[in-house]
Amino acid sequence: MAWTRVRDEALRERALQVIPGGMYGHMSTARLPADYPQFFHRARGCRIWDVDDNEYVDFMCAFGPNLLGYQDPAVQAAIAAQQALGDTMNGPSEVMVELAERFVAQVSHAQWAMFCKNGTDATTMAMVIARAHTRRRVILVAHDAYHGADPWCVPLSRTAGTVPEDRAHVAYYAYNDPQSLEDLMRRHKGDVAAVFATPYRHDVFSDQQALNADYAHAARRLCDETGAVLIVDDIRAGFRLARDCSWSLLGIAPDLSCWGKCFANGQPISAVLGSEPLREAARTIFVTGSFWFSAVPMAAGVETLRQIAQTDYLERLEAAGRSLREGLAERARAHGFALRQTGPAQMPQILFDDDPDFRVGYAWTAECLKNGAFFHPYHNMFLSAAHGPQDIALALDAADRAFETVRRVRGTLGPVPQLAPVIEYLARK
Amino acid sequence: MAWTRVRDEALRERALQVIPGGMYGHMSTARLPADYPQFFHRARGCRIWDVDDNEYVDFMCAFGPNLLGYQDPAVQAAIAAQQALGDTMNGPSEVMVELAERFVAQVSHAQWAMFCKNGTDATTMAMVIARAHTRRRVILVAHDAYHGADPWCVPLSRTAGTVPEDRAHVAYYAYNDPQSLEDLMRRHKGDVAAVFATPYRHDVFSDQQALNADYAHAARRLCDETGAVLIVDDIRAGFRLARDCSWSLLGIAPDLSCWGKCFANGQPISAVLGSEPLREAARTIFVTGSFWFSAVPMAAGVETLRQIAQTDYLERLEAAGRSLREGLAERARAHGFALRQTGPAQMPQILFDDDPDFRVGYAWTAECLKNGAFFHPYHNMFLSAAHGPQDIALALDAADRAFETVRRVRGTLGPVPQLAPVIEYLARK
Repeated sequence: MAWTRVRDEALRERALQVIPGGMYGHMSTARLPADYPQFFHRARGCRIWDVDDNEYVDFMCAFGPNLLGYQDPAVQAAIAAQQALGDTMNGPSEVMVELAERFVAQVSHAQWAMFCKNGTDATTMAMVIARAHTRRRVILVAHDAYHGADPWCVPLSRTAGTVPEDRAHVAYYAYNDPQSLEDLMRRHKGDVAAVFATPYRHDVFSDQQALNADYAHAARRLCDETGAVLIVDDIRAGFRLARDCSWSLLGIAPDLSCWGKCFANGQPISAVLGSEPLREAARTIFVTGSFWFSAVPMAAGVETLRQIAQTDYLERLEAAGRSLREGLAERARAHGFALRQTGPAQMPQILFDDDPDFRVGYAWTAECLKNGAFFHPYHNMFLSAAHGPQDIALALDAADRAFETVRRVRGTLGPVPQLAPVIEYLARK
Repeated sequence: MAWTRVRDEALRERALQVIPGGMYGHMSTARLPADYPQFFHRARGCRIWDVDDNEYVDFMCAFGPNLLGYQDPAVQAAIAAQQALGDTMNGPSEVMVELAERFVAQVSHAQWAMFCKNGTDATTMAMVIARAHTRRRVILVAHDAYHGADPWCVPLSRTAGTVPEDRAHVAYYAYNDPQSLEDLMRRHKGDVAAVFATPYRHDVFSDQQALNADYAHAARRLCDETGAVLIVDDIRAGFRLARDCSWSLLGIAPDLSCWGKCFANGQPISAVLGSEPLREAARTIFVTGSFWFSAVPMAAGVETLRQIAQTDYLERLEAAGRSLREGLAERARAHGFALRQTGPAQMPQILFDDDPDFRVGYAWTAECLKNGAFFHPYHNMFLSAAHGPQDIALALDAADRAFETVRRVRGTLGPVPQLAPVIEYLARK
């Protein structure tokens, strides 16, 4: 069936009337190639269908939440069973205790769990717990690391409507640079409440960077020396690098970790996990939300954590990522392109050499899209356990046709207008 | 069947191991009478069952979300149909546009909508939009009004882990007092971004107060005169006072309104609605969340808004509230108690005269509980459209038996230990 976007266009027109700018947040297509669909109709396994019924092998996984496959049968069964009993009630269901117990059993640093809805809820809660525990103020975060969209952490390029006091005690260090972190620690000596760290560097519009072990060990040591709280923000990468907290791969236990996106396979729930010394501070803060205690996402979480513990989901999504990476590298070379495929294969970032304003990458992902593979031109992508060899083969065929087309038209490509503010921001840095 | 709490006790023990303090937030039973169950098993209509299978006629409605009845068949059908297609995908489903269109059609001041998850997301987003629109800083809120649990708005009695800068530009006026609001406006002249107002006064541990029309009109006039943004926080009361924004009952259109809890009948979604002049500012802010674009809660919202527009749900829940109120007043009088039943009948607050430390109210609600009626001793309650005459009759029977018991034991009641910090806080005010 020919690729079309008739319904999507009509919906965009309607959305423009009733949603500011037509859409907002990370799922707005405003900065994507013009052909990307804004609206989706259904999803199953590793496939998605947009509202024009175009089918794609999906490498975004809803920006992470799809870990086991959309509509994973066992997770859907857990959802249906809980829904038939109750979801948002006057208090939690017993499934909340089971979910917390599973986290404590499966994540080695965790002695307790608190659940919320957004990733931002989890990072904000971790910040508040760290301040309550230390009775200090300063929060150290890496430049450009994404920790959510509350005024204290909204990306510095997108601060409309915030005030300087929102981040009065937030200070910035260079990710992966132990000296930068140590210098910043010293500058705020005696007042550092917490150090935030992502599992590895996964900033948008950039090559991903593996975690520097020296930096990670320095972060743990500096927190131990000063009493600051080490917080690993595993919201984006959690359970795609390990069945435990991502820094467990280096043998490092954070004091708090933040989780979200995928641990209920797409159901809305996030979490803060903590070690024993943080428990008392966590008990004293006030946090809540209308739907934080709803049972259905927790039931989905229990089943997802069960599969995380008991199945080879991780090996499957790693294998799918590796075969995608190898196949793309080979096809790119054959067409004369030099790809930079960075980050873990299960969370790939794909950028092109000699493409400073992303015009080649934009053209390529747009062509892949029309050929049935949904890649992202500037955000890291995600594999799921439902990506099988046939799906990867289809995606590689789409990629191959896209390389072929872009090779022909490369000389005619102009700058991407919707990226102008981004290019300007990146140049200023 | 005798009322028991064996399973609840066992779950509390387990929860204490893996959740700080055993539970947190507004669904913690830490300050409720000791007999209240912490964990619930199922819910249907206006009935809930705790984990020991004790059945209650429920007057909390999950603190609001249950508007049409737990497991409302049409809402459940909408949920199931959407779930079979997809929920959290790479972008919203077309149902998002439909939901925004319905809001714009049904809420008179609204020209656009943005959706999020928590009530706190909506109030924080409204604050950020107001600051972006006015390029000013100061946010005026009423003393003790609850607008969420982000550091900028967490109740002043529960600020562990926050820093003074979190509310550097938040100033407090006396609810329902036009002079207090005008004075505060003048004090921050030229820098007021927004005035927050709840639809009426529904603070915990207090009699509820009807909206003073002079205050509401003054708020609108002062915002018009100064260019500040008037924000009605309808998260708790929305769609229980009117089918429109609650202040529409006075003919007042806010610039922004915040919605949550019940507009998807318990599914996790909240919203900011705005008038045309705020649209551009709303377009420029950056807000997002992993699950903000999920389709299932939106499908539930479309069906709930349909019922709000097309059924007598509001008249039914008002009638149920009135018959509960009248029946309670009569039974209280018969047993020699003077009740203060305040607020709209569909969101009742029930306190006892001559009960400054709440010991009588605590004893009474605990006895009601054991007799099958779930009331709350210090938080406003909620009626749903599923409360029928038979349910109210059952609840009144339970209340009657509870009055009888409390009349006998009243002289022996001691202070409520878990309320000591609250009594102290109220005394300091």
